Amino acid sequence: MAHWLQLLNIELPIIQAPMAGAQDEELACAVAAAGGLGSLPCAMLSPAGVAEQVAQFRARVRAPVNLNFFCHHDPAPAEQALSVWRKRLEPYYRELQITDDIQAAARRPFDEDMCRVVEQLRPEVVSFHFGLPESRLLERVRASGATILCTATCVGEAQLLEAAGVHGIIAQGAEAGGHRGTFSSADTDAELGSFALIPQIVDAVRVPVIAAGGIADARGVAAARALGASAVQIGTAYLRCPESRISEAHRRALAAVRDDSTRVTNVLTGRRARGILNRVMRELGPIAEDVPPFPLLATVIAPLRSRAEANGSGDFSPLWAGQAAALGRPSSARELTELCASGWR
Amino acid sequence: MAHWLQLLNIELPIIQAPMAGAQDEELACAVAAAGGLGSLPCAMLSPAGVAEQVAQFRARVRAPVNLNFFCHHDPAPAEQALSVWRKRLEPYYRELQITDDIQAAARRPFDEDMCRVVEQLRPEVVSFHFGLPESRLLERVRASGATILCTATCVGEAQLLEAAGVHGIIAQGAEAGGHRGTFSSADTDAELGSFALIPQIVDAVRVPVIAAGGIADARGVAAARALGASAVQIGTAYLRCPESRISEAHRRALAAVRDDSTRVTNVLTGRRARGILNRVMRELGPIAEDVPPFPLLATVIAPLRSRAEANGSGDFSPLWAGQAAALGRPSSARELTELCASGWR
Repeated sequence: MAHWLQLLNIELPIIQAPMAGAQDEELACAVAAAGGLGSLPCAMLSPAGVAEQVAQFRARVRAPVNLNFFCHHDPAPAEQALSVWRKRLEPYYRELQITDDIQAAARRPFDEDMCRVVEQLRPEVVSFHFGLPESRLLERVRASGATILCTATCVGEAQLLEAAGVHGIIAQGAEAGGHRGTFSSADTDAELGSFALIPQIVDAVRVPVIAAGGIADARGVAAARALGASAVQIGTAYLRCPESRISEAHRRALAAVRDDSTRVTNVLTGRRARGILNRVMRELGPIAEDVPPFPLLATVIAPLRSRAEANGSGDFSPLWAGQAAALGRPSSARELTELCASGWR
Repeated sequence: MAHWLQLLNIELPIIQAPMAGAQDEELACAVAAAGGLGSLPCAMLSPAGVAEQVAQFRARVRAPVNLNFFCHHDPAPAEQALSVWRKRLEPYYRELQITDDIQAAARRPFDEDMCRVVEQLRPEVVSFHFGLPESRLLERVRASGATILCTATCVGEAQLLEAAGVHGIIAQGAEAGGHRGTFSSADTDAELGSFALIPQIVDAVRVPVIAAGGIADARGVAAARALGASAVQIGTAYLRCPESRISEAHRRALAAVRDDSTRVTNVLTGRRARGILNRVMRELGPIAEDVPPFPLLATVIAPLRSRAEANGSGDFSPLWAGQAAALGRPSSARELTELCASGWR
């Protein structure tokens, strides 16, 4: 039996990448209805929010669902770094005439509360980003019957994940949009491209490997398969579907994106992520050495983002996108899923 | 007819990457005899040296040959930047007890003299790195009958090359070892991975595209083909063949390389290149903002490199390698060529 069928019980070897802040059950349902794996990003949801989206999903489609969680450590207070950045951002606050405080949506690591949600809702798949939760929680997720996936950005991380008993490894190439899943040593991301990363992880572990990063059409799916992947995970290309929930600024930026438009930056959240180069990345980054830890930096950027987006500008938004973003087309999630799956021959 | 046959008149769609300072006609002959395209890197040779190697090649194998040239601009004198770096390197000079001056092998841009060599020797293929020579010289190369290739690292560069009339474009992904061929704007290399780069260049130009970067075995060749490449260029994997000419330090480093061992650095030559992380990259880079322009920095590093290598150390050597280096095996160039070609089905 094909790996992805065995592992995920889906018809097509296509996983819709969970994209926190950019989609909800609307996209997940459309992908699932087309035969791929629909994913619900939970890092910015409350337990009740997760339950609500899963209920919607269950009501609309009869298919497995993937709940995705972040596993960063809650940062220690970082008032000094934050005050440096508040000062650095002051000219922008003045320029945009911001006086009120806008609270950023929190990014929560997977915890006791969310673990209970998993035990109650019993998603078929649970995927983790930024490493795994503590083993006590991981074992409860395993006991719930979920297939467990986690992102690796190098061979060493893949080996750690296999040793921890994950069922599949998402090999995230440097092409990928959004946050790098690097967890073994966040400071020394080797930024391995998918061409190098996929076969080296495939050779190093026995569990199925899911290719992520730089895949946006049937050609990418075929190439990932040739390199030994058991399935693929596609993110950026789904952002252009009407089922995604991104700002108008983000949608416009994606429509105009070029091959060389993206950079890895840490000045939007405090952690390395790939997005379309915008004003804040240009003027303060794209990489700064003194950023407050993830996700704290996002709290002081939030008021700027909010005001700018209200004016139709993405100057302070995380315009997450991978290097293959320009291969994307506006199309329904069903069409995109079927197009990509046609490459798996 | 298959693209690579039409373009290059070779049996197998495998181009051995020209690797200046790391190989000569020995490797090129072995690859050519196996049915791939053998390449002679000429950037560090005199015109007489080029003639000598081509004569050897012609005497030993009946096959097309590729002469490769750099097209950087000769740098303006940069005494100030050089003296900063001489000072920065002083502790290393003292540590290695270097008093004498060792001259680095020059890296020459393609010029009038080399153009005459091409006209005399009539190589079947001429490939350029760091852009193209001035059009006056390029037209003489074209008139010689050579198939002209040049490296691009983004779509914009590929379009410039197509407009200049090259016959094929080498799409160099960020995975690739050695110098990045970026020429349109050396400061803003978007470091596109092969997964994203190949299909976007294929979509943007009409000429055949040769995939380079991260390819080390049959899987990589199959993946490059799936992404639309007309042939592949393989470098790092050939370094482990007995036919290459690398230092013992370099060979040992390649035998021990891991997926995450390489970084892009500019502290070895003044230009961005990917190599195995070593002492000089760690301690002075891997990227420094104030480097003397390529290739001047190499002249002040050369004495350190030379002394360290004599002691069996690669601490100051350019240990060029791509991100897929760990997929390489010690094998003959013929075996490697045939193994890789088996992926083109």
